[in-house]
Amino acid sequence: MSNPTLYTCLSPALLHLYDVRECIVVVIDVLRATSTIATALYNGAKEIIPVDSVERCIQLGTQINCITAGERDGQVAAGLQYGNSPFEYPRDFIAGKTLVLTTTNGTKLLHMALSKGATEIITGSFLNLSAVCDHLIQTKKNVILGCAAWKDKPNMEDTLLAGAIVSRVKEQFTINCDSSHIAKNLYNVAKDDLYEFMKVNDASHYHRLTNFGLEKDIHHCLTNDIANILPEYLNGKLVIQK
Amino acid sequence: MSNPTLYTCLSPALLHLYDVRECIVVVIDVLRATSTIATALYNGAKEIIPVDSVERCIQLGTQINCITAGERDGQVAAGLQYGNSPFEYPRDFIAGKTLVLTTTNGTKLLHMALSKGATEIITGSFLNLSAVCDHLIQTKKNVILGCAAWKDKPNMEDTLLAGAIVSRVKEQFTINCDSSHIAKNLYNVAKDDLYEFMKVNDASHYHRLTNFGLEKDIHHCLTNDIANILPEYLNGKLVIQK
Repeated sequence: MSNPTLYTCLSPALLHLYDVRECIVVVIDVLRATSTIATALYNGAKEIIPVDSVERCIQLGTQINCITAGERDGQVAAGLQYGNSPFEYPRDFIAGKTLVLTTTNGTKLLHMALSKGATEIITGSFLNLSAVCDHLIQTKKNVILGCAAWKDKPNMEDTLLAGAIVSRVKEQFTINCDSSHIAKNLYNVAKDDLYEFMKVNDASHYHRLTNFGLEKDIHHCLTNDIANILPEYLNGKLVIQK
Repeated sequence: MSNPTLYTCLSPALLHLYDVRECIVVVIDVLRATSTIATALYNGAKEIIPVDSVERCIQLGTQINCITAGERDGQVAAGLQYGNSPFEYPRDFIAGKTLVLTTTNGTKLLHMALSKGATEIITGSFLNLSAVCDHLIQTKKNVILGCAAWKDKPNMEDTLLAGAIVSRVKEQFTINCDSSHIAKNLYNVAKDDLYEFMKVNDASHYHRLTNFGLEKDIHHCLTNDIANILPEYLNGKLVIQK
């Protein structure tokens, strides 16, 4: 039997080029949606409801017992209680709670994948890199690594995570996808010090978050396996896969 | 005065994210449209008329004294006389003649840029890398490097050329563009042996052309400055900039 296939989609604006049905879609938004999702679930959140608009987030906040959170352009969105930093969700705050989250790129990509017929969606970050790779290798299904990017422009950190995943799983997949090989090579150059690589290469999100004083977030979100659970989208909610 | 800006657009499907007006747009289709364009003009072609459909190419062939050429999916398109290999256009054949050319990706991107208001379009390849870089540095205008890609999926060789250009001109431009930095790093890994890099990394176009027996074309199209002229789009035609 031949290996399953793996593709990397560098931007939501390219998602139409890939058939997301019958695949595992890995939603990647390193800074910071999928890092925050991994952190909140790791710290005991009951579930995370990703929504694609601030309005929907506010609305759900009035209907169910939950925490509403999200950002637009890197800052807490007006009308929401919390932002998109993993540090806002320590165990003593988030354990047992439902988090409703909307972000500029990551939650939008997730809904885009759903609307295109994706049936199996997980979220990936450096914080849960091993859990993601182990799952992909064990499941043996076709994979699409979906980078949330920044307003549809490919970005450094999501491409780096795609490259990290490709590097780890490549022997188990057939990869006829230049974007995957580009990502793999980029990660290979950067892997010894991802933070320094982002800085030296003027990554746009490095500048954006540093301007908000969020270097600490960047460091955290580039750290392997410190929230090493597998968030899976089931019945409208992200929960830890058992 | 601040430096002009430079952006890399990795796929025609992302071109709408960039403002191509008031910019120099560099159309990049390494395998093989823009390599063939550089070669034919270097070998004395009078002009090249890029058209976006096989039908239009055939139609022009009946109206003016010209050679019609083009490919779809890497092979000579039905109804056209010649293909998209630089080796089809030696000096003793092409000198003084008008070439009408249509290709799967490159000529389509050129017309897309025109339709979005681009007023200054040049074409880039490894064969005329220095001419392109010298022009960008001297002109001091904002630049968009437009990769033709393969059916809208980013590809290895166009990204490599974008990276080669970024590497050479980066001190003269402000580059707030992760795609440019990704391309630059990729090129830096690959530059000592581009052909071997394409092969080892399973570049999709390497396989596509090798399956047609076109390794020689790949080698040729990855060679620096062997047709070092500057093709410029003027009044519907690509000609050597004087």
